[in-house]
Amino acid sequence: MDKANKVFIATSLDGFIADKNGGLDWLYSVPNPNNEDNGYVEFMSSVDALVMGRNTFETILGFDIDWPYEKPVFVLSRSLKTIPESHREKAFLVNGPLTEVLKQIHERGHYGLYIDGGSTIQSFLKEDLIDEIIISRIPVILGRGFPLFDELPNKLEFELTQTKVFLNQITQSRYIRKK
Amino acid sequence: MDKANKVFIATSLDGFIADKNGGLDWLYSVPNPNNEDNGYVEFMSSVDALVMGRNTFETILGFDIDWPYEKPVFVLSRSLKTIPESHREKAFLVNGPLTEVLKQIHERGHYGLYIDGGSTIQSFLKEDLIDEIIISRIPVILGRGFPLFDELPNKLEFELTQTKVFLNQITQSRYIRKK
Repeated sequence: MDKANKVFIATSLDGFIADKNGGLDWLYSVPNPNNEDNGYVEFMSSVDALVMGRNTFETILGFDIDWPYEKPVFVLSRSLKTIPESHREKAFLVNGPLTEVLKQIHERGHYGLYIDGGSTIQSFLKEDLIDEIIISRIPVILGRGFPLFDELPNKLEFELTQTKVFLNQITQSRYIRKK
Repeated sequence: MDKANKVFIATSLDGFIADKNGGLDWLYSVPNPNNEDNGYVEFMSSVDALVMGRNTFETILGFDIDWPYEKPVFVLSRSLKTIPESHREKAFLVNGPLTEVLKQIHERGHYGLYIDGGSTIQSFLKEDLIDEIIISRIPVILGRGFPLFDELPNKLEFELTQTKVFLNQITQSRYIRKK
């Protein structure tokens, strides 16, 4: 798999990835009777590991579901000391400068990386380390919440490579970093 | 024409309508050799007047171009005392609560309204007075600038009615307020 750091995320029309209480119900406001995956399975087959922050990791651990990932998850954290024993074959702690972290992950044989979680995506964007972004826009204006994007030192140009509409309501566009 | 308050606007992927210096060059970063209008003419035929704030009005007056609107422009302003003499048959000062302003404009026979300018759009959204939004997403992350959306007291749900891609790079989606 080629080296690429990829984002696959849903936002409100005003760019939030969680509502003001961290809630995600609005993500499921579009009826989905056949449980369509909105491109998730195809996207997952294009990466061989995930990178996320401690917040996202702990949020997923807190959900009342089985561990949802078949691919290794690298948890970026300075504060977390260990991965809970239950997940030590699934998740791995990494820290340090992002380029170092990426080097370590590449050396372990993982090149296509799903970068997930708001803060982690923002850190990668600040260092211009995101190669591909797939954004699904949910047709709601939340008014406040946790934003996908944060301030950046420089503008970043992308190229639109695809746009699809899921469930007749969700616009999903794929962007590749123009270099 | 039916009563409807409509927005037609382009934003960066991170939701800005002008860069940090107010600049708009990034809007023209997608090559447009045949000078395509990206749906503007069709949209303009769906309204019979414009409503904008003083800032947008003065920005347009400041451009080194002929007055670009064939339809009446209502300028929302508390501070502006008069419309410059050169534009008195084209632009009209209005002020007061938005519902009052709308009533006045409707009484003059204008029902389909193009609501333009960041602050004006934000004021209308705060009172849930926007019926239709057409957003064109330019494939660039600006990192900072003037945002299209601001905080809202409540979330607003919309219905996606159309998505088009212009110039192979600009995704344009049309949303109708779900009521």
